[in-house]
Amino acid sequence: MLVVLFSVAAAQAATPEAEARATAARLTGAALAGGQSYATVSSLADRIGQRLTGSPGAARAVEWAVKAMKDAGLKNVRKEPVKVTPWLRGEASAEVLAPASVRLHAVALGGSVATPGTGVTAEVVEVESLDELKALGAKAKGKIVLYNKVMPRSRGFDGYGAVVPMRGRGAIEAAKLGAVAALIRSVGTGAYQLPHTGATRYDDKVEKIPFAAITAEDADQIHRLLASGEPVQLKLRLTCKRAPDVESANVVGEIVGREKPEEIVVIGAHLDSWDLGTGAIDDGAGCAIVLETARLITSLGLQPRRTVRVVLYMNEENGLSGARAYAETHKGELKNHVAAMEADAGAGRPLGFGVAGGPESVALVRKLAAPVMSLAPTVGVSDEAGADLIPLQMAGVPVLGINQDMSSYFDWHHTAADTVDKIDPVDLGLVVAAFSVMAHALAESPERLPPSPAPPRF
Amino acid sequence: MLVVLFSVAAAQAATPEAEARATAARLTGAALAGGQSYATVSSLADRIGQRLTGSPGAARAVEWAVKAMKDAGLKNVRKEPVKVTPWLRGEASAEVLAPASVRLHAVALGGSVATPGTGVTAEVVEVESLDELKALGAKAKGKIVLYNKVMPRSRGFDGYGAVVPMRGRGAIEAAKLGAVAALIRSVGTGAYQLPHTGATRYDDKVEKIPFAAITAEDADQIHRLLASGEPVQLKLRLTCKRAPDVESANVVGEIVGREKPEEIVVIGAHLDSWDLGTGAIDDGAGCAIVLETARLITSLGLQPRRTVRVVLYMNEENGLSGARAYAETHKGELKNHVAAMEADAGAGRPLGFGVAGGPESVALVRKLAAPVMSLAPTVGVSDEAGADLIPLQMAGVPVLGINQDMSSYFDWHHTAADTVDKIDPVDLGLVVAAFSVMAHALAESPERLPPSPAPPRF
Repeated sequence: MLVVLFSVAAAQAATPEAEARATAARLTGAALAGGQSYATVSSLADRIGQRLTGSPGAARAVEWAVKAMKDAGLKNVRKEPVKVTPWLRGEASAEVLAPASVRLHAVALGGSVATPGTGVTAEVVEVESLDELKALGAKAKGKIVLYNKVMPRSRGFDGYGAVVPMRGRGAIEAAKLGAVAALIRSVGTGAYQLPHTGATRYDDKVEKIPFAAITAEDADQIHRLLASGEPVQLKLRLTCKRAPDVESANVVGEIVGREKPEEIVVIGAHLDSWDLGTGAIDDGAGCAIVLETARLITSLGLQPRRTVRVVLYMNEENGLSGARAYAETHKGELKNHVAAMEADAGAGRPLGFGVAGGPESVALVRKLAAPVMSLAPTVGVSDEAGADLIPLQMAGVPVLGINQDMSSYFDWHHTAADTVDKIDPVDLGLVVAAFSVMAHALAESPERLPPSPAPPRF
Repeated sequence: MLVVLFSVAAAQAATPEAEARATAARLTGAALAGGQSYATVSSLADRIGQRLTGSPGAARAVEWAVKAMKDAGLKNVRKEPVKVTPWLRGEASAEVLAPASVRLHAVALGGSVATPGTGVTAEVVEVESLDELKALGAKAKGKIVLYNKVMPRSRGFDGYGAVVPMRGRGAIEAAKLGAVAALIRSVGTGAYQLPHTGATRYDDKVEKIPFAAITAEDADQIHRLLASGEPVQLKLRLTCKRAPDVESANVVGEIVGREKPEEIVVIGAHLDSWDLGTGAIDDGAGCAIVLETARLITSLGLQPRRTVRVVLYMNEENGLSGARAYAETHKGELKNHVAAMEADAGAGRPLGFGVAGGPESVALVRKLAAPVMSLAPTVGVSDEAGADLIPLQMAGVPVLGINQDMSSYFDWHHTAADTVDKIDPVDLGLVVAAFSVMAHALAESPERLPPSPAPPRF
């Protein structure tokens, strides 16, 4: 009987599919029993804490990452220089002066200019979209524009995508109409008097006006006051500013491929965070997912055919200079980048995989994902697979990622409540299992993904 | 055919039960179609805002209440003096200094003393209960005690009751063991980096040490740091203080009874609030419920047999001096108080009624509630029926109240997120319907409730 069992096992190991299934089971077992991903994200978020680009916390995080990569068994661990422009939050205050006196809960959006020292006082005009703003025309002149659109809750990025363009372009479009400042209802799904920060942009051809986020409650109250027909007077004061450029770094380490070390699978996450919370779900979880993937592959002795390169990017949140620096530093070897994955969607359980490409890409990802179809059953097409991968995707590198359940993610994203308690260790372990199986399979498979098309927004 | 219908209607109106059913249907219909309770709570919370006892907001709220009672058609509207001791929040900061640097989200508990100007710095000891603290003995000496008990979510007050004694007695018990300060995990069910304030007490025979609440996230992080076995050093700084006594007021108005005006049914709520939010659910909703009850009864021309007296109490949150002043001012007529109800459980939908008493009390409440059993089906025994009613209950006045769904209430209670958006206008209307039917029935019924026993905690 034993002989028969051994024969069956030997016969199974003989096919690539059986070997892939066995490897997937080992990675999944190790991710869930004895996995260290939760300890890793706790170490980064609880001990280093916030790591806003250019801050002392970000510098400590770089050293943390170097040590974490060495502890995970990676080789060629190094810091690759990235020049960054720090943005200092300073203080924010906003209050309704009339028809009632209401102290609001405001935070500056990342990159915003300051108000004058005495603040900006003006009447509020409320809109739900950039189109509605444009229709206001001259009525926005001299006003503070409030973007007040309720973000839909969804399992993926689509609810966020429906609102976040207002955060990105809101100051530019309001300034074009002569507004003196802009506010946005926090881009998020919670309602616990919790402001959500996030990056905004300017256009050098348009006046730069200050732009802050207020809470859902504040936005609702202003809406009710405006509904009475009375003008709402509001005072905003921000002291944020940019500081001179400083040197920072992406942190990079490798599992060197056993047959084709020059061919590379990048697995990445971003090391920087916003400064209000401790960056546990954004993107400590992603850092833990890729570090744990590396640790599992090395500790199980699974050196794959190609090189797996772990990249922890600096400055995803405030301008993507780390992503651009990586693509520039490695431009000579991008043709040998066979795939790139980023983990930047929190710690919710895996739903499936998304790849930027056509039917051929989907078919190969489905084949590689087959051993974990019970953990991550869907395979589909994504336009992008992570902001840090955009420069790679622009160069044709095949990009893909795990879709995760983000139903609660935007309750906490970019807020003071982005903390370790939001992470379910088992869900995180399930993501690690699916991610590590895909990363290993991409580095092991004889087949290669076709190039990804450029993302549609570029 | 018409004749037959009229006859049936006339026959039904002839019995007291049919009349009660018809009245209940009129009150319920008016509460839900054309009801003003949501507008009333919005007016108080959005326009007056926070109304901490002794603050300018509380003074404005008293004038608001006088006008609201007159608008509701009440007679004998007056301010009844209440002496109050203002407590000024000042500033609060708390940070973990080691083994990591963590800025916490702290608020002083109401009534707390300040720290020295430079703050208090000490090692943290964590307990889950007052019993666990006592077992620590000398190990608490020189320490900062952290009460870190997760509050259970429940439909009523029981989850709160399981934790809130630590907020009430935490400073006293910690000081007895030589602790230098105390912190408590916010007494609430949310986790959005949102601190919950609330009153604490001192004992003149025990040293008064500063006592603050931190957020669930902060408490979890300290718990994780302590779990590593390293000492956790923490610095707390509070600048709160008491100010000299000032004159404030309960606001009182009446629907004078048509047959027995000297017999009184009190319906009350508290006008003061905590200062972090706008006091919408605690207790703007209660103010709206009782004012709307009065408005419905007067506007429908339903002058009941006895007097319905609306009382909006000052200083429920910081010492119950309004409740005591009411009982003192009216001690000569307490024997004619046939019942007292308080609305101070938010705006969640009604579940039923609770009365402090025995089977005879339950039977009468069940009879009076019969016309709204489809809205509020359960009738049971409660130990209390509202903090402001305790002095009346101590004097034997029959007290009762509506049980409401509080599943979400403690997510927001005593926080900056206690705002109007937390109120569902339909749920609030359903509470008004059940409350107004019971208030009217108590004032109309020939029967009287037996005296309530004193609450068990006194």
